[in-house]
Amino acid sequence: MRVLGVDTSLRSAGVGVVESRGSRMTAVEYNTISIPAAALLSECLGRLNRQITEIIDRAKPDAVAVEGVFFSKNIKTTLILGEARGAVIAACACKSLPVFEYSPRKIKQSVAGYGAAGKEQMRRMIGSLLGLPELPDEDAADALAIAICHLHNVTRYAAIAPKAI
Amino acid sequence: MRVLGVDTSLRSAGVGVVESRGSRMTAVEYNTISIPAAALLSECLGRLNRQITEIIDRAKPDAVAVEGVFFSKNIKTTLILGEARGAVIAACACKSLPVFEYSPRKIKQSVAGYGAAGKEQMRRMIGSLLGLPELPDEDAADALAIAICHLHNVTRYAAIAPKAI
Repeated sequence: MRVLGVDTSLRSAGVGVVESRGSRMTAVEYNTISIPAAALLSECLGRLNRQITEIIDRAKPDAVAVEGVFFSKNIKTTLILGEARGAVIAACACKSLPVFEYSPRKIKQSVAGYGAAGKEQMRRMIGSLLGLPELPDEDAADALAIAICHLHNVTRYAAIAPKAI
Repeated sequence: MRVLGVDTSLRSAGVGVVESRGSRMTAVEYNTISIPAAALLSECLGRLNRQITEIIDRAKPDAVAVEGVFFSKNIKTTLILGEARGAVIAACACKSLPVFEYSPRKIKQSVAGYGAAGKEQMRRMIGSLLGLPELPDEDAADALAIAICHLHNVTRYAAIAPKAI
């Protein structure tokens, strides 16, 4: 099974495709979609949408996982995050892929074994779990972690399958 | 010039294409994209994105106008509105169309002459301005109003052109 994990952000979204075969997991590809600060909102959303579509066409994942938004205080950043999520999720839905979401705590638990793991610890765990020659950057690492979290939840708890959004 | 106006909403988005020739404006098409309440978030966003793409392919507008989000208190509804905006704006950007946004007040001023016009008054004004045989429903009327607002602003104040988002 192949899962595309997306660490959604308007100008620096992480993407990572992870494949599982039995108990072994490998990274198919991972990257950060960096868009210049000067780009218009519409340009950012168009590029996000297009690049997610390209990754899906290339890597052919079976499902997509994103981080859920469970707490936010700031209306402006919530709106921007929503816009980025809309561009990403629409691209996945247009390819008929189911999309799942997980809390940051659940993602950390899945990868590092406990929900309060730090950024560096997560990067090292991901590098080790996937046997990467070099540690991925922070956004790509977050995306790979989300994909790993979904694979863990699908395969370990198949009886209580995660719910698509 | 043809403008696609979108009254962005997850399950009941209004769309309307208005064409101007000289001082005359006509409605090319208008509708409400209704998505059942039971549909998943991802399904709604995929359908919004696809339907906006289809309207653009069919009606070939030169620009798109949406209502800006200038005030909101509720984080959850802001996130959902953001997601819907992301799906809509990404579809427009993927077709290389510029996207403009206007405040609700400016839209009402453009159509009815003052910023505190009521819903019914707006519908009647739109019906009259576009010479429609029947009044459009509320969401489609809002979308037509946004398109008219952009046409007014582009043609009347060309020296201070509206800024794309």
